[in-house]
Amino acid sequence: MATDIKGRAIIAQSGGPTAVINASACGVIQTALAHPKTFTGVYGAHNGILGVLREELFDLGSERPEAIEALRWTPAAALGSCRYKLKSLEKDRADYERIVEVFKAHEIRFFFYAGGNDSMDTADKVARLAADMKYDLIVVGVPKTVDNDLAETDHCPGYGSVAKYLATSVMEAGKDTEALYTTDTCTIVECMGRNAGWIAASTGLASRCEEDAPHLIYLPEFPFSVDRFVADVKDCVKRLGLCVIAVGEGLQDADGKPIAAASGQFAKDAFGHVQLGGVAESLRVVVEAEVGIKARTNKAGTFQRAAMHWASRTDSDEAYRVGQAAVEAALAGTSRKMVTLVRQGSGAADYGCTTGLADLSVVANGEKPLPRAFVNEAANHVTDAFREYALPLVRGETPVELAPDGLPVFVRLRKQAVSQRTGRPYSTR
Amino acid sequence: MATDIKGRAIIAQSGGPTAVINASACGVIQTALAHPKTFTGVYGAHNGILGVLREELFDLGSERPEAIEALRWTPAAALGSCRYKLKSLEKDRADYERIVEVFKAHEIRFFFYAGGNDSMDTADKVARLAADMKYDLIVVGVPKTVDNDLAETDHCPGYGSVAKYLATSVMEAGKDTEALYTTDTCTIVECMGRNAGWIAASTGLASRCEEDAPHLIYLPEFPFSVDRFVADVKDCVKRLGLCVIAVGEGLQDADGKPIAAASGQFAKDAFGHVQLGGVAESLRVVVEAEVGIKARTNKAGTFQRAAMHWASRTDSDEAYRVGQAAVEAALAGTSRKMVTLVRQGSGAADYGCTTGLADLSVVANGEKPLPRAFVNEAANHVTDAFREYALPLVRGETPVELAPDGLPVFVRLRKQAVSQRTGRPYSTR
Repeated sequence: MATDIKGRAIIAQSGGPTAVINASACGVIQTALAHPKTFTGVYGAHNGILGVLREELFDLGSERPEAIEALRWTPAAALGSCRYKLKSLEKDRADYERIVEVFKAHEIRFFFYAGGNDSMDTADKVARLAADMKYDLIVVGVPKTVDNDLAETDHCPGYGSVAKYLATSVMEAGKDTEALYTTDTCTIVECMGRNAGWIAASTGLASRCEEDAPHLIYLPEFPFSVDRFVADVKDCVKRLGLCVIAVGEGLQDADGKPIAAASGQFAKDAFGHVQLGGVAESLRVVVEAEVGIKARTNKAGTFQRAAMHWASRTDSDEAYRVGQAAVEAALAGTSRKMVTLVRQGSGAADYGCTTGLADLSVVANGEKPLPRAFVNEAANHVTDAFREYALPLVRGETPVELAPDGLPVFVRLRKQAVSQRTGRPYSTR
Repeated sequence: MATDIKGRAIIAQSGGPTAVINASACGVIQTALAHPKTFTGVYGAHNGILGVLREELFDLGSERPEAIEALRWTPAAALGSCRYKLKSLEKDRADYERIVEVFKAHEIRFFFYAGGNDSMDTADKVARLAADMKYDLIVVGVPKTVDNDLAETDHCPGYGSVAKYLATSVMEAGKDTEALYTTDTCTIVECMGRNAGWIAASTGLASRCEEDAPHLIYLPEFPFSVDRFVADVKDCVKRLGLCVIAVGEGLQDADGKPIAAASGQFAKDAFGHVQLGGVAESLRVVVEAEVGIKARTNKAGTFQRAAMHWASRTDSDEAYRVGQAAVEAALAGTSRKMVTLVRQGSGAADYGCTTGLADLSVVANGEKPLPRAFVNEAANHVTDAFREYALPLVRGETPVELAPDGLPVFVRLRKQAVSQRTGRPYSTR
C-alpha cells in the first residue's frame, strides 16, 4: 500500500557520530532520489535539528551522485550533527512548532531522523504535533549509536564498527604489552560508554584464549570496587606476568560516584593531586600504587567511533539497508516508527539480519541494557554468549578509497543552501 | 666476499615495539635459515638483551615456517623486548662480559640487534669487547623506532606505519569534529614522541586543504607558548568554527618544563587541581578556560605503534628488507654496522629506497632532528617539504589475515627453550 502523500523529504543526523551514520544517510538519499514522484526534493538539515530550527537547509539533490555514493565510506555525520535536546511538548513547544513551521514552508512531508533515543523522542513529538495541526507528515527514525543501547532493535548501526576497531586495537595493544611486560606490565584501555558497557565489552572479542588481551573488562553497569580490581590485577599478573584492562568511561563505585571524577574515591594520587584525565588515568594511579607495576593508558576517544578505515562491512551494509528501509516504510505510508535490525539465525555461524519497525515512542522511552548473561560471574569479562551475539557484527572489510598519497578519501558535501521561506529568524537556546 | 665465520645467529629485539619490528625479524630469520652452512642455528633472545644476560634463548629453527612467515604481519615484538639499558663498558663491564660468555657457550657468532640508538650503542660495545677477547663475532644492527630519529638512515622502519595510522585517525577525528562542532568544537590528539616531533608531524599528512584536520600541530622541538597557542586556537575557531590539534607528548615551555608535568605551568585547572593525564589533558584545560570552547582529547597510546591493521605496506616491506640486508651484510663479513634506508628519487612521486650501512658508533651517538624546513614559520604545522618526505612512507596496505570470526590473526611463537650451557645464573639489575 503506497502513500498518497507527496512532498519534500528531509534528513537530519543527531548526536555523536559513528563510522556508518553516513551509510544510513546514503541509503535514505539514494532511495528517496529514486522515487521523485513521491519525494519532490531531498533536503539535508545543517547540523541536525538545529538546521531545521534555524532553517539552514540544503539540497541533497544538487550534490554530485558520486559524493552521495562516497557518503557510504565516509565517517562521522556529513550533513552535520548537534547535541540540541528537545524536552517535552509543553516545555519546548516553540521549538516543536518551529520545526513544523519550517517543514510547512518548504513543503516537507517526510522527516528521516538518524539518532538515538532522544532523537526518536523528538521525532515522535514532531509527528504528534504535526498531526494535531492537521499537517500531513511522515516521520521515520533511523537508529544510530555506537553505544548499542537502543530498545527494540537487536543492535544499532555503528556498534559493529566500534567493536571491530576496539577489539582489533586491544588485540594489537596486547601484543605490545606482551613484548614489553618486563617494564610496561599493565595497559588500561578507556572505552566510550557512559552508562552502557556494550563498547567496553566488545574488546572481549579479542581474547581467544587466556593469554590474549584483554584480561579484565570493567563495565559501568556493575559497581566498581577498587579492592576487587586490585585483587583481579594482582591475580592476573601472577598468572600471566602482565595485564591488559578495558574499562568503560562511566565506571562508578557502589554509591554511584564516578571513578573518573575529581570528587571520586580514586581521584587523588599519592601526592593528593587530583586526576581529571578520565577513568583510565585514575585506575593507572591505583595500579601503580597498589599493585606496584607500571601502567600505561590508551584512550582512543573519537578515533574509535570515526574509524572508517577499519569499519565492519556488516555494520556498514546494515546501516545502508536501514536507511533504505526507512524510505521504503515512508513510501508505504508508515509513520512514527523507527527501523529496527532483526537478527536471524541462532548464533554467530548462521547469522542473518533483516529490518523491522518499532514505535518511536517505545524506542524513546526504552533502553537495551547489556544482558547479565553476556558478562561473567565476577563481572570482569564477557561470556561466550556475548561473543555469539557480537562477533557477526564485526565481520567484513569496507572498501575505503585511497588517494594516490596513500591516505583515505572522504567526502565533504557542498551543502548548497536552500533559500529561506519562513521569513523570520529563530533563536535557539 | 663471503665470511668464513660459521656459527649460530641470535636475534634480539629492544625498546618500544612497532608494527613492523617483527617484519624485520622475519627478514633476518628467513634469510639466516636459508644459509645453514654459515648459520648453524638461529636463536631468539627472550625479552631482548635480558634474554641474553639470563641465558633465556629459544630456537627459532624449531618454529613452524608458517609462524615465522606470520611474523611479517604481527605487530609488536614477538621475540620479546625490554628496556634494559647498558651503560659504558666500564660501568656495566659484567653485563657485557656476560653477553660474550653466553654467546661463546652457545657458539653464537652472529648477533642481530633490532632497536634504536641505545641498542646500537650496546651492539657496538659487545662487538668491541668480543674483539678484545679475540672472540670472532659479527654484529649487525637493524634500525627500529616509531620516533624516526635515528641518525644515518633516511627514515626508520616503524615510522611509516605510525604515520599512516595517525594521519588516517586524525582525518577521521576531523570529520567527527566537523560533524559536532556546534558543541564539541575542539579535539586534541596526543601523539607519541618525547623528544622528536616526527610522529606528531605525520598527522599533518591528513590536511590536504585548509578545512582539513589537523589545523594546528605542536612539536616538542619548539618551545611551547601558551599565549601563542591560545591565539592560534582562537584564530582557527574564528576562521573555521572548530579546531583539531595534534601535539607531541613531550611538549616543553621555553624553560624546558614539560607542559604535561604536575609541576608545569598549565598543570592546574581553574580549581587548582593538578592534571596528570598527559599533555593533551593539560591543553584541554587551557582551551576550555582561555578559549571558552569544549575540547576533547584522544590519546591512542600504544594503539598507534601496534596498529598492524592499518600499517604501511611500504614500511612493512622495507622493514623486512632491512632484516634481509642485515643477514646479507653478515654473510659478506661485515660487522659493527647498522643497516640504513637510502632514499632514491627526488620527491614523493619517484620515491624509491635501497639499503646501506652505517657505523654502529655513529648511529649510537647521533640523532636525526626534524629539519626546520619541514615545519612552517609559526612552528604550528608542517610544510610541503615534509609531505614530500613522509607521504611515500605511508603508502600501501598490508594483508592482515582475518580469522573466520572477522578479527586479525597474529602469531605467538612457541619459543622452545634452548638448554642453558654457561652453568651459572646471572642476576641483572
